[in-house]
Amino acid sequence: MLIISDTIRITRKAVAEALLRKDPEPVAEMALAAQRAGADVIDINTGPLARDPNGMAFLVRAVEKAVPLRVSLDTVNHEALQAGLAASRNGRPIINGVSLEPEKLRLIAPLALRHDADLVAYLLTPKSQVPPDAEGRLAISSEIFTKLTGMGIAPERIMFDPICPPLVWQDGLSQAREVLSTIRLLPEVLGFHARTLVGLSNLTTGPGPRPKKILLQKTYLAMLAAQGLSAVLLDTDLAEVVETAKAASLIRSGEIFCWESLEG
Amino acid sequence: MLIISDTIRITRKAVAEALLRKDPEPVAEMALAAQRAGADVIDINTGPLARDPNGMAFLVRAVEKAVPLRVSLDTVNHEALQAGLAASRNGRPIINGVSLEPEKLRLIAPLALRHDADLVAYLLTPKSQVPPDAEGRLAISSEIFTKLTGMGIAPERIMFDPICPPLVWQDGLSQAREVLSTIRLLPEVLGFHARTLVGLSNLTTGPGPRPKKILLQKTYLAMLAAQGLSAVLLDTDLAEVVETAKAASLIRSGEIFCWESLEG
Repeated sequence: MLIISDTIRITRKAVAEALLRKDPEPVAEMALAAQRAGADVIDINTGPLARDPNGMAFLVRAVEKAVPLRVSLDTVNHEALQAGLAASRNGRPIINGVSLEPEKLRLIAPLALRHDADLVAYLLTPKSQVPPDAEGRLAISSEIFTKLTGMGIAPERIMFDPICPPLVWQDGLSQAREVLSTIRLLPEVLGFHARTLVGLSNLTTGPGPRPKKILLQKTYLAMLAAQGLSAVLLDTDLAEVVETAKAASLIRSGEIFCWESLEG
Repeated sequence: MLIISDTIRITRKAVAEALLRKDPEPVAEMALAAQRAGADVIDINTGPLARDPNGMAFLVRAVEKAVPLRVSLDTVNHEALQAGLAASRNGRPIINGVSLEPEKLRLIAPLALRHDADLVAYLLTPKSQVPPDAEGRLAISSEIFTKLTGMGIAPERIMFDPICPPLVWQDGLSQAREVLSTIRLLPEVLGFHARTLVGLSNLTTGPGPRPKKILLQKTYLAMLAAQGLSAVLLDTDLAEVVETAKAASLIRSGEIFCWESLEG
């Protein structure tokens, strides 16, 4: 299971300030910490970044200079994506992501093709609503799969994100269960080994006791892993959650067990 | 998910001594501790108990006097089972368990019928070998299901145990994966909502660092829960593992979430 760190996000003051001052140091530190914690990929979440599309390119350079890891460019701003992709050198980047929204499909999907990037496809309705159940998510997965491959994007470049709900939503627990089913059924429905991605931090977003948040994230992550999840976007500052990702990957591997397999 | 405590076992010195001296106190203490930790059922593991078939009856009385929970009688000694079942008063007991071994089927299965007990069916070969994969386990589940229902035992009384492997076995990780598949496929194969049980402590049996054992137990338990596991036999002294069982049950429930749902 690919571990993608979500610690570099514009909503963190340190990241926003580093970007404002164009100071790569704090960002490099975060990337190094994520790498030490076990990240395989560093997600860079700049939000819409409306005023400064070159911010993404700056952050991509700051991260890629600090660590040899791949980056995931997490914004819906296509100009920022274009600048970030052009700046990226560390192996195949991930575009996070696209949905059935016509504007996004038109502006973002072609960037994946042009830069031979992986592309996250959100299983959202064309109006960016979360479908109520697995059935809705699976129907959307077929639709977005048809659209993206129709544009020439290879099936193996797509990472389907069924949208992890915050548990505090009124139907949060029921949605969490539907996401588990979606992960399991998606490869069957699409007829190939479709890759899946879940943003785990979303599960416990909002106020709540930290130990219980960590417990729920760990438990849900192992459950997702059992359903075949390919990649997880998580907070690598939570060592216990990363540890769970590694233990679940080990259990799924079917390899020869040794206690050392669980080392960082 | 039903939580069955495995702390009362004859291999623990305190239990062996209490049994020898016919002192109910230490056993009552353990049962109370298991109840406080969150157990729904107390497993009483006496091993073969060759010399003293009445030991089981003594332990059943000691546990049932201390807590209002159901008991699980964990022995292959049919005389001990008979005495324990006759002594039990706290609601439907569990017989743990029977396999395709002809002797066990002949002597133990009728006790389930006579006492209207739940019956654990081990997915072992007739020679008590662990099958190499899910396919082998599923074939055995059909066979033992046919045998038991042929004897008049109701399908809903049977709890199928696919045998959790110690990870340190040469094929331990691969077996652990096969058990996950077995749990998921069993209801489909048998054509009804077949209940399943796994003995989790077995996963990390033998020497090894305790924190990693707990990590593996927690992670594997959540993975089993995601596959639909009905009941888990575990060490209720490991609070983190019990906590994981409760979190996984909550996530599977699809109910309305609140943080208090995670209280003991």
